[in-house]
Amino acid sequence: MRAAVIHGPHDLRVEQRDEPTMGSGQVKVRVAAGGICGSDLHYYLHGGFGAVRLKEPMILGHEIAGTVVEIGTNVPDVQVGQKVAVNPSLPCGTCRYCQQGLQNQCLDMRFYGSAMRMPHVQGGFCDLLACEATQAVVVPDHVSLHEAAFAEPLAVCLHAVRRAGSLLGARVLVAGAGPIGVLTIAAARLAGAAEIVATDILDPPLAIARTMGADRTINVASEPDALSPYKAHKGSFDVMFEAAGGASTVLAGLELVRARGILVQVGQGAEVSLPMSLLVAKEIDLRGSFRFHKEFAMAAAAIAKRQIDVRPLLTDVVGLDQAGRAFELAADKSRSMKVHLQFT
Amino acid sequence: MRAAVIHGPHDLRVEQRDEPTMGSGQVKVRVAAGGICGSDLHYYLHGGFGAVRLKEPMILGHEIAGTVVEIGTNVPDVQVGQKVAVNPSLPCGTCRYCQQGLQNQCLDMRFYGSAMRMPHVQGGFCDLLACEATQAVVVPDHVSLHEAAFAEPLAVCLHAVRRAGSLLGARVLVAGAGPIGVLTIAAARLAGAAEIVATDILDPPLAIARTMGADRTINVASEPDALSPYKAHKGSFDVMFEAAGGASTVLAGLELVRARGILVQVGQGAEVSLPMSLLVAKEIDLRGSFRFHKEFAMAAAAIAKRQIDVRPLLTDVVGLDQAGRAFELAADKSRSMKVHLQFT
Amino acid sequence: MRAAVIHGPHDLRVEQRDEPTMGSGQVKVRVAAGGICGSDLHYYLHGGFGAVRLKEPMILGHEIAGTVVEIGTNVPDVQVGQKVAVNPSLPCGTCRYCQQGLQNQCLDMRFYGSAMRMPHVQGGFCDLLACEATQAVVVPDHVSLHEAAFAEPLAVCLHAVRRAGSLLGARVLVAGAGPIGVLTIAAARLAGAAEIVATDILDPPLAIARTMGADRTINVASEPDALSPYKAHKGSFDVMFEAAGGASTVLAGLELVRARGILVQVGQGAEVSLPMSLLVAKEIDLRGSFRFHKEFAMAAAAIAKRQIDVRPLLTDVVGLDQAGRAFELAADKSRSMKVHLQFT
Amino acid sequence: MRAAVIHGPHDLRVEQRDEPTMGSGQVKVRVAAGGICGSDLHYYLHGGFGAVRLKEPMILGHEIAGTVVEIGTNVPDVQVGQKVAVNPSLPCGTCRYCQQGLQNQCLDMRFYGSAMRMPHVQGGFCDLLACEATQAVVVPDHVSLHEAAFAEPLAVCLHAVRRAGSLLGARVLVAGAGPIGVLTIAAARLAGAAEIVATDILDPPLAIARTMGADRTINVASEPDALSPYKAHKGSFDVMFEAAGGASTVLAGLELVRARGILVQVGQGAEVSLPMSLLVAKEIDLRGSFRFHKEFAMAAAAIAKRQIDVRPLLTDVVGLDQAGRAFELAADKSRSMKVHLQFT
Repeated sequence: MRAAVIHGPHDLRVEQRDEPTMGSGQVKVRVAAGGICGSDLHYYLHGGFGAVRLKEPMILGHEIAGTVVEIGTNVPDVQVGQKVAVNPSLPCGTCRYCQQGLQNQCLDMRFYGSAMRMPHVQGGFCDLLACEATQAVVVPDHVSLHEAAFAEPLAVCLHAVRRAGSLLGARVLVAGAGPIGVLTIAAARLAGAAEIVATDILDPPLAIARTMGADRTINVASEPDALSPYKAHKGSFDVMFEAAGGASTVLAGLELVRARGILVQVGQGAEVSLPMSLLVAKEIDLRGSFRFHKEFAMAAAAIAKRQIDVRPLLTDVVGLDQAGRAFELAADKSRSMKVHLQFT
Repeated sequence: MRAAVIHGPHDLRVEQRDEPTMGSGQVKVRVAAGGICGSDLHYYLHGGFGAVRLKEPMILGHEIAGTVVEIGTNVPDVQVGQKVAVNPSLPCGTCRYCQQGLQNQCLDMRFYGSAMRMPHVQGGFCDLLACEATQAVVVPDHVSLHEAAFAEPLAVCLHAVRRAGSLLGARVLVAGAGPIGVLTIAAARLAGAAEIVATDILDPPLAIARTMGADRTINVASEPDALSPYKAHKGSFDVMFEAAGGASTVLAGLELVRARGILVQVGQGAEVSLPMSLLVAKEIDLRGSFRFHKEFAMAAAAIAKRQIDVRPLLTDVVGLDQAGRAFELAADKSRSMKVHLQFT
Repeated sequence: MRAAVIHGPHDLRVEQRDEPTMGSGQVKVRVAAGGICGSDLHYYLHGGFGAVRLKEPMILGHEIAGTVVEIGTNVPDVQVGQKVAVNPSLPCGTCRYCQQGLQNQCLDMRFYGSAMRMPHVQGGFCDLLACEATQAVVVPDHVSLHEAAFAEPLAVCLHAVRRAGSLLGARVLVAGAGPIGVLTIAAARLAGAAEIVATDILDPPLAIARTMGADRTINVASEPDALSPYKAHKGSFDVMFEAAGGASTVLAGLELVRARGILVQVGQGAEVSLPMSLLVAKEIDLRGSFRFHKEFAMAAAAIAKRQIDVRPLLTDVVGLDQAGRAFELAADKSRSMKVHLQFT
Repeated sequence: MRAAVIHGPHDLRVEQRDEPTMGSGQVKVRVAAGGICGSDLHYYLHGGFGAVRLKEPMILGHEIAGTVVEIGTNVPDVQVGQKVAVNPSLPCGTCRYCQQGLQNQCLDMRFYGSAMRMPHVQGGFCDLLACEATQAVVVPDHVSLHEAAFAEPLAVCLHAVRRAGSLLGARVLVAGAGPIGVLTIAAARLAGAAEIVATDILDPPLAIARTMGADRTINVASEPDALSPYKAHKGSFDVMFEAAGGASTVLAGLELVRARGILVQVGQGAEVSLPMSLLVAKEIDLRGSFRFHKEFAMAAAAIAKRQIDVRPLLTDVVGLDQAGRAFELAADKSRSMKVHLQFT
């Protein structure tokens, strides 16, 4: 079978690998669609991010959907031929975080296509994947596998929204209109936010932001002062989601969020020179949000019911054999929102 | 009557002022004890802090206790001769924050001895004070007025503890063993923390930290590696209170607090170059805590019942006429924990 | 002007009253639409409910919308001719509950058309109403005044949903498909519930329940066992809203809600013989929900944006002069969901 | 070895049983002290409670402490000779509740001395016990094994307190001054309650209630009106713990707890004819509390540090061979608070 393997910066190769073998409790999935995520891009462009660096060749990919082609022993609930979104997260279930229900903080996490541990955990950009049956979340036939492959990034955003508590009736600011930003908009809308303002420095993603539910979009490059009125009376937004990864965005957020407001950092985030005195005076709550757990099934269900329609995000579909071109496309934010590899 | 008036950096004068007049709903208090707080010191040493600068002469002081000497009309619950701790905080009661029960974030706050608004709100370092009866919290006779004057800084710390949610059974780190740090230790103990570790760079305050309830104290200047074992398994502390105002303390906290842990910044805090990626990966919750509201009455009650015994903090008592010497003493952290002015 | 005045059980009279005079901060509203609520019906059918009994003639009505016809002094934000939903709730703003942000629990509440206090607070079923400008929530012109009159019952349901915390991704049961039940369905959908099951003993309201967002409806009279599978594994629903007012519904709920689940009682509720041992063993959280405060503005906004389309609820519109017939219609649950009085 | 085996109502026999064999990860404990709990008494007096009925002979007992006498393979952290409190709760770790951190709601729970499942889970009233090493919580030598045996009932009470959220500064009512009531008082004190009122219908337990931290005790049999003033202004207590198991206590609680207050039912509770309209109007939160999970270690630690001194509760110690007499003593509430069996 084929696999998209990263060997180093700009060295992505489509290679032949042995087909995976299956164990008890597992299923084999023929992968159909794979979304290129920001972390995939970091491996491709820079060989890693922060302290996470590539130390050996690794199959990339963790936004995966496909069709079940084989079922192992002790798998009661899945059938061959069913469409599945594949949850790339495999927590141990027994460490102190798992036993507290915080599986995304598992001390022994195995997450597809991640160089955090050694040997690296191989990813899902390959023709065939053997995974735990619990990782394969069935979606109905009317959902395309490209839609299903959005379950992973949507799960990240649903988790971020849940980190903020109830959004019902809230005024929300989403900074950054990349895939995580616009799916956070959709998730905040699903959660009942009353008003959503979205910002970015490019117009095309802001158009998609409006499609996904933003009430107002602001290009902070071309309208640098448009947010200022929201700073009045100690700030206007109950919750801000920072999905731009910028230091200046966080600093602006401290002024835009109301006193006792919540600022959720989604995605890796920058190094920020943070004035703690402002955070103190307004008693702001700055929260990190990382990956997801039960939100994966929530995301698959929301996509299946079209409570959230993810299709406006898919800007390009590229065959696996042209993986390099797909990654170059994905790197161009002015042109691409989400690029999918097509396997079959 | 006499008042301690700050005119500029190192220019503190004991001056004569007219006795205050009283309105309906007010009481007149003969001030007996006044604690020198960090913000008083900032006015004395630097003429202000951050964006808050002295623009006209101002009576300092907001840690005040005394005896009621006169009662206005429409004051049913106070008697002449009663001891009171004076709450220096006077929110408007009608703004959107007050109507949400967030009076400490009042948009029209009048807080004693603060240059935040113009004209400045005069403070309580004076012989006689006319205040709203609701600001005068009666304490029983067996409590000294020096103890009662600790109600204000203790209220700050009870508020900080409440910002962290329930501490029952929690492992807590308190960084910084100044007055706010050691009262936070006492407040965390009162709230049922299972284990409290306190840090500072000086030994004398750490001795008081132990008296106030720390299970273990660490001088991070002389034992720089003693905290390292607490970093294992994504961190050990459920909650950290940063009361040192240091950037390095916050950064260390990100590693010492467990995943999903809470880091409460009490006091003004430094400018911190914060790696958001770590805050994200561990999903840490960084919360500011500012002043107090209903915690003032809680603090007075805890002192009155000696649930918290504040007496170990009082290192010096200096007559008002020597106010300058009192401030110099208060500025020497190696020698003084809390310095009180004595009025009568 | 005309007013619909209740004098005793089944004694509702349309009478002439003096036009109201206005004070500072008030506006005068020409009432156009008035919804008949369950409590209005109780006054009409029984002269009250529980301990609340009619002791003098009272204008009924608290689901009111109309057009501003006159503006008092000190009212900056409203214009003559604007459409408004009228908030029937007027808390004092200063009692201990108001100052905690719990205005719906105000100790000195004035709520339109309520016999809780003496003299009774007159209601809004009259041609002209003078109210505080803060009670008049402007809605855009494209919204009909019949829609706007749903702001009040929708506010009750948004409050109930907020009492349950975040519903994002939750499995929800709504028992009872009267106006409160079906608006709770809509509110739970708005809040991101993943699955909503609704029950009633009549089919017509269940049809409206489906329109308002229920995924599945069950007629528990004709399908008495259909809920049983939801009892497996200590129960299936994260949250149940009891809007049927039945004792048996609450008892069934204890088995249908999962361990640590939440059961919110909306509406007055019955006397229930509650087995505390089951509530204990499953650690169920049984919460009362009463009226609303800031949810009124949220409701008006959700109606204005058609985030919730309330129009399927309006089964009858009857002119004020036939108020008695309107009440008889409203009392027939098999036929009517919501009956509106028409004033102009 | 000996064991106290219940065969039916009033048929408790001290019998010889085979010594337990040990598996990997287990330790063998020589039991020294065993507290008689209310559920033990129910089996003894009535053969069970509610739906839980004795169907085969069962060793009673789940408040157990002893000394480690043998250590199995793969047990790194325990030594022979150490004193341990034995956690009688053994959740499966893998069911949906366990994986949410709600282990006390485990769908496959094995709890010592419980007839909930068939075959029954044998209890700890026996000379030797083989348990998972994780169940054996080490306590320091200075703690007596009788104190250590209080870890279980104290864990129940710490769990109940945690169900109420933060109690710091709260006004608390504890109804019922049996062992659970008075340990709840101690737990609420530990959690920083500002004021604790305790009620019972007998004076001797109220004396112990005061020792354990109640500020005021009321004998509601001899002073039936003493609680009435607390009903003013919609109620006075932020939180009430119902540990009396009485219907009238719950009903009184609805009036004594403030609006939006919390009423936690600890212990099995009675059948209560509950007026939902009052629960609704005051928006009371009625919560069940059942057993414990991580609170067991918290309890053992609080006893070890004497943050809570449990010794005033121990009214009788009776040798195992006189187990029947011990149970008769325990059944006499006017005379006994907690009766311990002594094994060695």
